[in-house]
Amino acid sequence: MSTVTVMGSGSWGTAMASTLCDNDHRVTLWARRPEVCSKINTEHRNPDYFPDLILPDHLSAESDPSRAMADAQFVVLAVPSQTLRENLGQWRLPDNAIVVSLAKGVEVGTGMRMSEVIMEVTGISPDRIAVLTGPNLSHEIAARQPAAAVVASARQETAIAVQQLFHTATFRPYTNNDVLGCELGGATKNVIALAVGVAAGMGYGANSAASLITRGLAEIIRLGEAMGADPHTFSGLAGIGDLVATCSSPLSRNRTFGEELGRGRTVGEISGSTRQVAEGVKSCKSIKALADRYQVEMPITHAVCAVIDGQIAPDALVQTLLARAAKPERY
Amino acid sequence: MSTVTVMGSGSWGTAMASTLCDNDHRVTLWARRPEVCSKINTEHRNPDYFPDLILPDHLSAESDPSRAMADAQFVVLAVPSQTLRENLGQWRLPDNAIVVSLAKGVEVGTGMRMSEVIMEVTGISPDRIAVLTGPNLSHEIAARQPAAAVVASARQETAIAVQQLFHTATFRPYTNNDVLGCELGGATKNVIALAVGVAAGMGYGANSAASLITRGLAEIIRLGEAMGADPHTFSGLAGIGDLVATCSSPLSRNRTFGEELGRGRTVGEISGSTRQVAEGVKSCKSIKALADRYQVEMPITHAVCAVIDGQIAPDALVQTLLARAAKPERY
Repeated sequence: MSTVTVMGSGSWGTAMASTLCDNDHRVTLWARRPEVCSKINTEHRNPDYFPDLILPDHLSAESDPSRAMADAQFVVLAVPSQTLRENLGQWRLPDNAIVVSLAKGVEVGTGMRMSEVIMEVTGISPDRIAVLTGPNLSHEIAARQPAAAVVASARQETAIAVQQLFHTATFRPYTNNDVLGCELGGATKNVIALAVGVAAGMGYGANSAASLITRGLAEIIRLGEAMGADPHTFSGLAGIGDLVATCSSPLSRNRTFGEELGRGRTVGEISGSTRQVAEGVKSCKSIKALADRYQVEMPITHAVCAVIDGQIAPDALVQTLLARAAKPERY
Repeated sequence: MSTVTVMGSGSWGTAMASTLCDNDHRVTLWARRPEVCSKINTEHRNPDYFPDLILPDHLSAESDPSRAMADAQFVVLAVPSQTLRENLGQWRLPDNAIVVSLAKGVEVGTGMRMSEVIMEVTGISPDRIAVLTGPNLSHEIAARQPAAAVVASARQETAIAVQQLFHTATFRPYTNNDVLGCELGGATKNVIALAVGVAAGMGYGANSAASLITRGLAEIIRLGEAMGADPHTFSGLAGIGDLVATCSSPLSRNRTFGEELGRGRTVGEISGSTRQVAEGVKSCKSIKALADRYQVEMPITHAVCAVIDGQIAPDALVQTLLARAAKPERY
């Protein structure tokens, strides 16, 4: 039994906090708003994200960050990737706690991965940092559907400790030592999911989606290899697994956002009507910048950025699949 | 402009014959039943498979195999994989024609791929044989949705000739020289699609499906490498692409068959209520036999065979995802 604090009460933080309770850990969920904490503590619900889900009654919520993290052996970071730096700057993490990153994204402006942001802001050694990723749509995890995941850390013992922390009857994490590859897989798949959503929103079916996923994975692997990741990571749960889950589920925010783009709505119109902003809408520019920095060809990512900026129509994105001259599949 | 005969008027043969007409080839479709030929020739419809689709008016159908293939420069084989041998034994293919295999499966009993069956029965050189595969659900192709595919042949010139034959504004084939890998990808994905269908039929969502696809691809690659295929083939359209399309589309017969299994129906009950039998139901035993012969671990394929034989319940199949001890992702 461990003492764990989950920082962030969005859908993924809440689902993971709930799962951690299955292992009888002492789990505290930090929520910014006291009224959300009150609902969790008294009614065992998070009405914003899971109105119908009864949370474990030993999950306690706390709105003061320091009190939430007091005594934590594990701090699980579940705030959006673009706000992580700002949040970390305001918090003081407990000495010696292991830090687990749940956010999937690349920081706009710096191009940094979440583990890099954590190290830079807190000075914590990479040996105490792990990332948890994989094909894990939060609503299914919250419903205790069976799922597999990946825990990556530079230090094997850290990865194993986090694996054991999260391992339940329905949630199975595997360990991996390729932190870079795991984080890249998690961030880049949101961009491909936007592209798949665009095609779906235009009425195209499984053939187009599968081709976008295949070619999308190829460009993810090209970027990963250029940056020094292990290409095998992308054949696993943190690569194909996460990509396929995100691209195929109607619960995926990125796919859904893409569908709206495909139906002809603008980014402003879609953002105005939803509380949660699709991560890929922000990360796509960071990933495009990484592609440029490492001189890697990422045509789907480029097309997604152009659609989001209103520079090309959604139809032109789908045409990138067919626009190249007939040639061998590998080149 | 070429003279092409498509042997087999099922959904895939009809969709490909229709696509070939877009290139102004002289296309003949062989259908066993004269009444189907009559419908195609006079009403430009194939009511059994595409009741609402108007076929090109220059597509002609013919029920006599010899007359259908007379003068054909390309013979496209579109009969089910388990009947290919019997059909080829009754036909006389034109000398010097290039033969294109569309069937995705491994022959029950012999474990032979379709190109091997063609070579054995007809004596045709591998240099004149190509296989066409990829993420190509027939209804979407017939509707002219954009799609990419792979043409593989032992001889590069043959692959290019077939690529040019099929290349239209909406259908883009890439060439590949790994015939073995392309055929294995096409056959094995049907088995994984059955597993994904079982999970869906039991009410599980995208996380389980994505994990089954990821682990399924890993076992496909293990088999392919043991048999001498190029592992990169499985990262492309003939591998992941076809796997994802088949596993995610409600139009996929194999996935749909699996869903019925997941809802508790037996193979006999499901087969009795549909005209088209899911290819993977037959091929799974051939693929399991290949796994045994090459001593490759294929736990999902084994579990699918056991569900089809009624030896284990559908729930036990999904549990194979979670049943292993916690360990690193690669082992």
